Amino acid sequence: MILDSLEPPYYAVIFTTILTNDLNGYKETAERMETLAKQQLGYLGIEHARDEVGITVSYWKDVESILNWKQNIEHTEAREMGRKKWYKQYQLRICKVEREYGFTK
Amino acid sequence: MILDSLEPPYYAVIFTTILTNDLNGYKETAERMETLAKQQLGYLGIEHARDEVGITVSYWKDVESILNWKQNIEHTEAREMGRKKWYKQYQLRICKVEREYGFTK
Repeated sequence: MILDSLEPPYYAVIFTTILTNDLNGYKETAERMETLAKQQLGYLGIEHARDEVGITVSYWKDVESILNWKQNIEHTEAREMGRKKWYKQYQLRICKVEREYGFTK
Repeated sequence: MILDSLEPPYYAVIFTTILTNDLNGYKETAERMETLAKQQLGYLGIEHARDEVGITVSYWKDVESILNWKQNIEHTEAREMGRKKWYKQYQLRICKVEREYGFTK
């Protein structure tokens, strides 16, 4: 799913990942985290794609919303599990969206 | 490929796409655009993934570099072809990367 135009400025978290082969519990936790993220104050939407690399971009009203979500206990536990088991490598970038352009055929 | 840590602030262009079924010439053009982007002043790197949705994130030194690349003639032609043939929908977001965190096992 592509998230339609929002009104800048707002925030994006670009989370790029390479997974290990030990994916026991990964899918359930990823789905649970998406469900939980949607319930957070300031959550605007999410986009993801995966082939060799996974890219998940979540969109937020402001940095405060992102930091609140980061501190969520269940999310913190999921991240620790991720570092222990599921992720070979990841990079997380917090960005301010300044402009956007959309196209629909 | 995941792009290693860079030094914020810098810029990210998040390009999310849904393709049509008419992909004649798409792959060659996408590869050519990546080759060409790498030659631009201010280019820092690129990440992409695709399943139902494609997400390409390119990273740039500043907004000026992004606008210069946007105005590149070959890139402009490729965008027009994209809107005519390959893209059912896309969203392009220009963002300032303010913070980042990396993890490698």
